[in-house]
Amino acid sequence: MVAHGIRWRAMDAFLAVASRREVRRYADRPIPPEVEQRILEAGRVSGSSQNRQPWRFVVVASPEARERTAAAVWAGDNVRGAALVIAVIVAGKGPVSFDAGRATQNMLLTAWNEGVGACPNGIADRDKLAAAIGLTEDDHFATVLTFGYPARDVHPDARTPEEWLERADRRPLEELVERR
Amino acid sequence: MVAHGIRWRAMDAFLAVASRREVRRYADRPIPPEVEQRILEAGRVSGSSQNRQPWRFVVVASPEARERTAAAVWAGDNVRGAALVIAVIVAGKGPVSFDAGRATQNMLLTAWNEGVGACPNGIADRDKLAAAIGLTEDDHFATVLTFGYPARDVHPDARTPEEWLERADRRPLEELVERR
Repeated sequence: MVAHGIRWRAMDAFLAVASRREVRRYADRPIPPEVEQRILEAGRVSGSSQNRQPWRFVVVASPEARERTAAAVWAGDNVRGAALVIAVIVAGKGPVSFDAGRATQNMLLTAWNEGVGACPNGIADRDKLAAAIGLTEDDHFATVLTFGYPARDVHPDARTPEEWLERADRRPLEELVERR
Repeated sequence: MVAHGIRWRAMDAFLAVASRREVRRYADRPIPPEVEQRILEAGRVSGSSQNRQPWRFVVVASPEARERTAAAVWAGDNVRGAALVIAVIVAGKGPVSFDAGRATQNMLLTAWNEGVGACPNGIADRDKLAAAIGLTEDDHFATVLTFGYPARDVHPDARTPEEWLERADRRPLEELVERR
């Protein structure tokens, strides 16, 4: 299906949720500009507390900013190997970390929908990162997202959502859900 | 398409992200158990920092717990009119609010994929809510999610994702994105 000149891959949203995995090793293949745009739009339109939209997205593109960002996160090789790096910054009052999590998940699922893997990266040195991408005291880093086509092929369609949900690395529903 | 006995609505994940709106007024129509299960599974399998899965989900079902929960959030009528109410609780170290936001967005998108609207509700009185659903000092409330089929029909398929993205109530991408 083609909509507005972009090939539309119809991946069911629940299949995307169920099949998505963190991807840390990326193929040496660029992400097309229209896919990058969709990822950013997905963050932009996310819901937030009182519609405050407390986020900004810094695309870390220059080799120098890339290397300095790599040196500021725990897993620098995720940044070095990524086709696209986006730092999610939030500021202001309210549940900004919660809202950043919502926007991030929108971005990660939209990437996955396009066949692009991704991973949120924890920040080891906030000051180093602030210097690398030029931020102020008031900015709060939520995460550094690394994106790229997976080094190993992934085929979400090969299983049903229910099959994807069977994960040894997640606690079972019975442990998590309580009824009142 | 039918998979595992459940009618599978294939809604493209980006269409779900782009078309989703907060829904606060719900039809008087129950949510089938298999849809409730999918919503909970979507939270369960979400990614989190170091895979800590810091969440628990309390389904607020009894009339008494419902009314006490309604009295503890800012917009009590969202709770009173909802077909399903889930409190998202997180505990422990690390970016638990960020992780709760990721799990929440998975749940909201999965609901939307099934035609179910939802809204995160801010908590006005933490102690009252803790008493209503029986929590401890260490538990941190992330949000109270209210779900239901929208009172007004919504047709995500009636527009393309790009058309859904044109929102007067969101800041434009140029304001949010910076390149380094």
